[in-house]
Amino acid sequence: MDIIESLQWRYAAKKFDPSKSVSPGDLKTILEAGNLAATSYGLQPFQFVVVSDPDLRQQLVPFSYNQPQPGQASHVIVIAVNTNVDADFIKASATYTEQVRGLEDGQLDGYAKQMIGAITSMDEEQRLIWAQKQSYIVLANLMTACAALKIDSCPMEGFVPAEYNRLLDLESKNLHASVVLPIGYRAEDDEQQNFTKVRRPLKEMTHYL
Amino acid sequence: MDIIESLQWRYAAKKFDPSKSVSPGDLKTILEAGNLAATSYGLQPFQFVVVSDPDLRQQLVPFSYNQPQPGQASHVIVIAVNTNVDADFIKASATYTEQVRGLEDGQLDGYAKQMIGAITSMDEEQRLIWAQKQSYIVLANLMTACAALKIDSCPMEGFVPAEYNRLLDLESKNLHASVVLPIGYRAEDDEQQNFTKVRRPLKEMTHYL
Repeated sequence: MDIIESLQWRYAAKKFDPSKSVSPGDLKTILEAGNLAATSYGLQPFQFVVVSDPDLRQQLVPFSYNQPQPGQASHVIVIAVNTNVDADFIKASATYTEQVRGLEDGQLDGYAKQMIGAITSMDEEQRLIWAQKQSYIVLANLMTACAALKIDSCPMEGFVPAEYNRLLDLESKNLHASVVLPIGYRAEDDEQQNFTKVRRPLKEMTHYL
Repeated sequence: MDIIESLQWRYAAKKFDPSKSVSPGDLKTILEAGNLAATSYGLQPFQFVVVSDPDLRQQLVPFSYNQPQPGQASHVIVIAVNTNVDADFIKASATYTEQVRGLEDGQLDGYAKQMIGAITSMDEEQRLIWAQKQSYIVLANLMTACAALKIDSCPMEGFVPAEYNRLLDLESKNLHASVVLPIGYRAEDDEQQNFTKVRRPLKEMTHYL
């Protein structure tokens, strides 16, 4: 099973080699895998913010509790969630689905209404959490695609969202930084790569009913 | 890229063929992929509850807003999050890591203290959300592994956690149902399989900085 090998190979890189870059083709494959993530109702309530500019990456470091990875990595992929998932957002999604599937205009109106009911029954905070959960599916796909390409990554929750939002000008785009994935190539002397992966045995993780 | 093909192949099955079962070997591979998911601090704050009993699967249907998939699928994998991620849970995790990596007893005490500080600074609700986010990484890995094995699945947020907790006796195990994945094989007449996958184009999903 390739996927098991890839997942075994992956580790959270603590130190990237700043001289190595992820190729545009590989970056596209990685983002494509993220874009293929399942999301609630297929609404895709997120955007990728891909930071390659070295100065900007370096500015993220103090707002990442001084973890050095954003400064060293080839690219920092910020998965940002939409803060504007409202009736208009959902109608636009339904209209786009009608177009892609060659349906008639308005054929998904009933479904859109159902989605709008479900989503707008959540308050702003609940909706943010709902979108953030979806963004973790996206994150997983990015990590798996990276590993399949033997590209290193480091999932990061340890950052200050408000400062990321400000530095990357996310609020004006109705976005909020949810989770961060620096990607690139491990430094030769990243000791972390030599540590045994630790997972509790499957039998301790599973109940069969 | 195999992973892109797998992710393209995947769809949310609306109707499973109840006569087809996922083999024990494939089930193990799928769960292994989930168990290899990255989680915050590597704490793995979740358990798999794998329901194969047909009666029990059927009992889940009314608490799944009458979606039929739990009743038809080969197995229903409930990803349940731990509600007891406290200092003891974290210390046990650190001790296990010391054992697996051949470290000295107590060598990770400082790191454990740091984790305990971070996790216990969250209130009960925040901690649940934190664990649930991790469970969505696990969910993604399960779906990707299924697709790699040409096994169908259907991620489900539409269920009543309290009723799942009750039916599956989760509270006594300090668990809370987070997200649900029926797996199995699509019914030949599941119309959903013929629909074009809808994703907004990558260029509309991405900002480059």
